[in-house]
Amino acid sequence: MFPYRIVVAPSGFKESLTAAGAAEAIAAGLRRAAPAAEIDRLPLVDGGEGTAAALAAATGGRMVPVTATGPVGRPVRAELAVLGDGADREAHRGNGPPWVGGTAHGTFVVEMASVAGLALVPAGLRDPGATTTRGVGELLRAALDLGARRVLVTCGDSGTSDGGAGALQALGARLLDARGRELPPGGAALNRLERIDPARLDPRLAGTELVVACNPFNVLCGPRGVARVFGPQKGADPARVAELSSALERWAAVLARDVAPAGVALRSAAGTGASGGLGAGLAALGARLRPRFEVLLDQVGLDGRLAGADLVVTAEGALDRESSRGKVPGEVARRARALGVPVLVLAGTIGEGAHEASLVGMDAWSGILPAPVALPEALARGGEFLADAAERALRMVLLGSRLAQRSLSS
Amino acid sequence: MFPYRIVVAPSGFKESLTAAGAAEAIAAGLRRAAPAAEIDRLPLVDGGEGTAAALAAATGGRMVPVTATGPVGRPVRAELAVLGDGADREAHRGNGPPWVGGTAHGTFVVEMASVAGLALVPAGLRDPGATTTRGVGELLRAALDLGARRVLVTCGDSGTSDGGAGALQALGARLLDARGRELPPGGAALNRLERIDPARLDPRLAGTELVVACNPFNVLCGPRGVARVFGPQKGADPARVAELSSALERWAAVLARDVAPAGVALRSAAGTGASGGLGAGLAALGARLRPRFEVLLDQVGLDGRLAGADLVVTAEGALDRESSRGKVPGEVARRARALGVPVLVLAGTIGEGAHEASLVGMDAWSGILPAPVALPEALARGGEFLADAAERALRMVLLGSRLAQRSLSS
Repeated sequence: MFPYRIVVAPSGFKESLTAAGAAEAIAAGLRRAAPAAEIDRLPLVDGGEGTAAALAAATGGRMVPVTATGPVGRPVRAELAVLGDGADREAHRGNGPPWVGGTAHGTFVVEMASVAGLALVPAGLRDPGATTTRGVGELLRAALDLGARRVLVTCGDSGTSDGGAGALQALGARLLDARGRELPPGGAALNRLERIDPARLDPRLAGTELVVACNPFNVLCGPRGVARVFGPQKGADPARVAELSSALERWAAVLARDVAPAGVALRSAAGTGASGGLGAGLAALGARLRPRFEVLLDQVGLDGRLAGADLVVTAEGALDRESSRGKVPGEVARRARALGVPVLVLAGTIGEGAHEASLVGMDAWSGILPAPVALPEALARGGEFLADAAERALRMVLLGSRLAQRSLSS
Repeated sequence: MFPYRIVVAPSGFKESLTAAGAAEAIAAGLRRAAPAAEIDRLPLVDGGEGTAAALAAATGGRMVPVTATGPVGRPVRAELAVLGDGADREAHRGNGPPWVGGTAHGTFVVEMASVAGLALVPAGLRDPGATTTRGVGELLRAALDLGARRVLVTCGDSGTSDGGAGALQALGARLLDARGRELPPGGAALNRLERIDPARLDPRLAGTELVVACNPFNVLCGPRGVARVFGPQKGADPARVAELSSALERWAAVLARDVAPAGVALRSAAGTGASGGLGAGLAALGARLRPRFEVLLDQVGLDGRLAGADLVVTAEGALDRESSRGKVPGEVARRARALGVPVLVLAGTIGEGAHEASLVGMDAWSGILPAPVALPEALARGGEFLADAAERALRMVLLGSRLAQRSLSS
């Protein structure tokens, strides 16, 4: 029992704190309330911005700087991580339980958001019919150049909708129109796709395990296809959405005929729509599409680290109805509940439907704001507020512990 | 142990919630987290605005409407409470322990703020040299007319600095200048005071127990005298402060010579400066000046109700360095600690120095804001925010209880 073993497993706070920053702030606050607590910091990510860096940090890996083509064609400095075996995780926690598994070692991580993310698309150029995933293919090549045998591509926060066409082009596939000319970048051009020539695809792909961490609810085609669901928020008007939808239908058909192994479903299988259809493009190359939390949380050994804990503290920018569905705290809560570990959630904002949190295993939650402040101040002082809130929350928990001990001993 | 017995003993939230409203909101939130908890609601006041009504509510007493002279001479509707014996307190709580004592019965409460409070002084008329406590004397007379044998005068939130001169005039004392003319209202006029004729003072005062609930740190004269400490915030400029200081020195001297029983200290005894010197004026009439929390919290039987509780939840608008010194939560914490009862504090704002809260016995505290909001919205939605925060806080406490139980049983 005392001192408590606490796993700190927060998400980042958008525009305020990275997951690592959030974990650090929470740990600092918890220590003020309980200096003897054993704290295991485990920043979590959902596949989007910052995922590669967070996974590298969690496993004692390293970052490799790579310049690649950005979503609008301009070069960007992108994220390529080489995961470690977790050996230096000791620096991140107390004397927690040993980390389970060691499969992270030697895994490369390509974060699609770092090279094709929406944040990289200037407001005036937000046209998902024109943006490209070429940089993703370039990062994959860079990983292969470094000797990668296992590559994890993480999806989320994308600004593209080209079905991964750009990535395939960067890896050597030739996308040709009826006159045998190479297509220009962007999903809209796929309406003119006649055939794909895979002859020059990088041969090293064949010997490489390719895994895509994606939201399984995203599919490439059909009424819930990626053009319809995400096109508008990436900047497409209704006409462009229709154009993209038909382009991706065509892409799926040609890809299946000319590239994909027999039997691989591309139109509406789980995850094919991830990151504007990048899932489908990589699946055609033999990649396995896996639910992102299964991959990402397993990669950092969440279950093993939870198993030895008395309490897990998770966090996110906003706790609301969505939190229990496909966001970090909901996933942490589900796993913690399965292991019988109580869950405490700290949130920048407590929104509508936060009560539903208890349904997925969140036992208690709190906002972090100490006073009426405007959003910019709340974002700027996120770390300070989060640390203080963590301290206050743990004081409440400790109060409850004393209550129970007093009752049980009387 | 379970279900927990919880005393809810909050202060009001200025400009947002009365103490009773705060207690109701907290109780509602606690019940959502723990429907079976026994909740004893005990709204607390510090002597200022709303004190009479709160004491009446806490003891099952009643309010008597009285129109009296306000601080700038205009009539105001004032608060006169007749306390009950607490019989109907059952409506305010669960099945908590019996209330100790029954001394409240038949006690009248005169709330100075209701008839001479700063809020009753229009901004353009904020001159503590001119405002009067005449209404306080009128309320005392009204209480005597109703047969009062024990009157509690509560200080706090005053807008006057006349040393209680107006109150004494209303009770029959004649304040005369060198030419034998009655002085006009206001503290500044006391510089012309030559003598006091007490012959026509209400004779019923002699048979009445008069208690003043005041901040014992407020004194009438000297460098920490009431004119210097509170004059500026009541609207006095430096010249007026000096004028008032000398007037109150004169008032103390003449009062001691012409009215006060021998041996009563008026210049710098504890509480003589309460409510602009009202403490001194009433002390001259034989009133006992007592520390406000001692009187007010005893009046509602705080200690007895705490003694049977597992937890006390207190609250105030702002938790900061001042909270532990002469404010409701600090006093509740001190008493609860003496009784071994854990203390949880909910605050609209967590300010500088909140950490010092733990020094006086506050075990845990939390802000109530769920999201970045501006102050007006925070004030308008105070009850909703407070109820939600109470629920969240108790969930944390219950989580801690389960942690301890799990540890102890494993």
